[in-house]
Amino acid sequence: MQVLITGGAGFVGARLARTLLALDALAGRRLDRLVLTDQFPAPDDLRADPRVEVRVGPLLDQCEALQREAFDGVFHLASAVSGECELDFDLGMRSNLDSTRALLEALRARVAQGAAPTRVVFSSSIAVFGPDPAVPLPVVCADDTLPAPQTSYGTQKLICEHLIADYTRKGFVDGRAARLMTVTVRPGRPNGAASSFFSGIIREPLAGEEAILPVSTDVAHPVSSPQRTVEGLIAVFEASREAFGGRTALNLPALNVTVQQMLDALEAVAGPKVRSRVRPQRDERIAGIVANWPRATSGARAARLGLAPERSFEDIIRQYIDDCRRTAPQALRGLE
Amino acid sequence: MQVLITGGAGFVGARLARTLLALDALAGRRLDRLVLTDQFPAPDDLRADPRVEVRVGPLLDQCEALQREAFDGVFHLASAVSGECELDFDLGMRSNLDSTRALLEALRARVAQGAAPTRVVFSSSIAVFGPDPAVPLPVVCADDTLPAPQTSYGTQKLICEHLIADYTRKGFVDGRAARLMTVTVRPGRPNGAASSFFSGIIREPLAGEEAILPVSTDVAHPVSSPQRTVEGLIAVFEASREAFGGRTALNLPALNVTVQQMLDALEAVAGPKVRSRVRPQRDERIAGIVANWPRATSGARAARLGLAPERSFEDIIRQYIDDCRRTAPQALRGLE
Repeated sequence: MQVLITGGAGFVGARLARTLLALDALAGRRLDRLVLTDQFPAPDDLRADPRVEVRVGPLLDQCEALQREAFDGVFHLASAVSGECELDFDLGMRSNLDSTRALLEALRARVAQGAAPTRVVFSSSIAVFGPDPAVPLPVVCADDTLPAPQTSYGTQKLICEHLIADYTRKGFVDGRAARLMTVTVRPGRPNGAASSFFSGIIREPLAGEEAILPVSTDVAHPVSSPQRTVEGLIAVFEASREAFGGRTALNLPALNVTVQQMLDALEAVAGPKVRSRVRPQRDERIAGIVANWPRATSGARAARLGLAPERSFEDIIRQYIDDCRRTAPQALRGLE
Repeated sequence: MQVLITGGAGFVGARLARTLLALDALAGRRLDRLVLTDQFPAPDDLRADPRVEVRVGPLLDQCEALQREAFDGVFHLASAVSGECELDFDLGMRSNLDSTRALLEALRARVAQGAAPTRVVFSSSIAVFGPDPAVPLPVVCADDTLPAPQTSYGTQKLICEHLIADYTRKGFVDGRAARLMTVTVRPGRPNGAASSFFSGIIREPLAGEEAILPVSTDVAHPVSSPQRTVEGLIAVFEASREAFGGRTALNLPALNVTVQQMLDALEAVAGPKVRSRVRPQRDERIAGIVANWPRATSGARAARLGLAPERSFEDIIRQYIDDCRRTAPQALRGLE
């Protein structure tokens, strides 16, 4: 099995790579080779694995050469993020739309050469959903809720969903688009994304640092842990076309939580002192952006694939603490 | 007022041009100049009008020059049609997606030079709707029905809807996407499109010729006359943003008819002898395509703009007969 992960050095991509390497299999076949492309070099542990090949540079520049490589599967995660795409429209169009199209064209060229359609999992996003004056956002965004993106990032993700559906219909690829929830708890530093606080209000207090909460505690949002997200991507890859059910995108499972529930979970897992390091300080800009996001999603199609959300936000915090214990114990220096 | 119509030599485009020239106004301003771009030369009557400038060639090749022209409004109708896009995927991507993007980029460049966002009406299509295994087609497709295109043409139209919405959100254009119904009765010859019979079963009998009906008479479909379609495009152009209501696409009004109702109307307007020239001869290929099309649409947003469908299919046939009497009386040689 030859597998390509675009965005393979990113947070989700690297975790997916580690999971696949540990399983040493995908869709019942042995993992022979795992190619990670990214603008940044992949972490050392991945580079050290003999099955891994790392390529660094813009995906767009690598696609033509991909016509000459036989991959059995592609996880297409590479993407400019929401904030970047709002600041630099051309960057988003190039990184998200043009790169996806170039990747699909490379895979289509393989089919023209006689290969079977390559299985492709595309990471779309709940950013496809949003309120339009003509189409209010429902209380819960389901698989078949009408997308009305309120960002260029969400627009580009939605366009790629439809490109992948049509390339699949034409037999150019065997594509599946899965919408990722907000992944939390992300390690590392705040990244300036409007959603950054969904990780920050857990991560910083556990590290003994103050975290700013820029929105009201009654903000609700669909989240998922890194591991459930990776498991969802693999399940979507491994599903038969019949089980995937159609060519439209599906929502990965979400734990729909309020910020209050997140903070209560932090106190339950880590104690009141850690919880007290979250300081409310409203940021109207961030609160305004967040007000346009889905407050909850459902994932009926994902459930039929056997995927479920975490049972509680406590579980998500515990997963983060376990990860840190293994790889970055200093991130828990606020924990007594 | 300087207005551009892409696809300005086509059936709908030329009729829109004639209507605007007759009104000599758009959105309360005098029509000073009307530029028609198309792959084919515009009809002689349009070329003869001193306000008209005709440009012939692919839209994609003309877009860069458009950056240096100040248009107050654009009707973007140019498009490869459904059948072409299925046969030649690259043609559809280039003619529909790349050309629209190049047009939007040209208009965005004007804004970067300090101009106000250009008002753009984009002709989308009911081809955005279709049944997906995960999302059955509703009985009536409303403005906010989830699109699930079953053709590359429908996919490209849907992608352009979302590009226009995002370019509008960013202030690069003032864009409005309106979904056209199947326009009937089209003059001329059968064009090989699967929908061709929706005009053929009226047009050919009126011309004294036999018409093949390739589907069952209980097939239902949303249709509109050429003139109502043109009036809809103008109303969408003239609407305030508030009246247009959001950035998502709207359905133009449809008369939802069955083929049986169309044939009954033909008999009512033109008599049983004309009606008898329609010969049922099932074509499984066409019947299969048509089975994936919406059987009916609703247009609540269009209704709020004051737009209504024709009251009956008889009215649509009478409009066609009136048109022919003025411009092509030989097309009525089957009428006694």
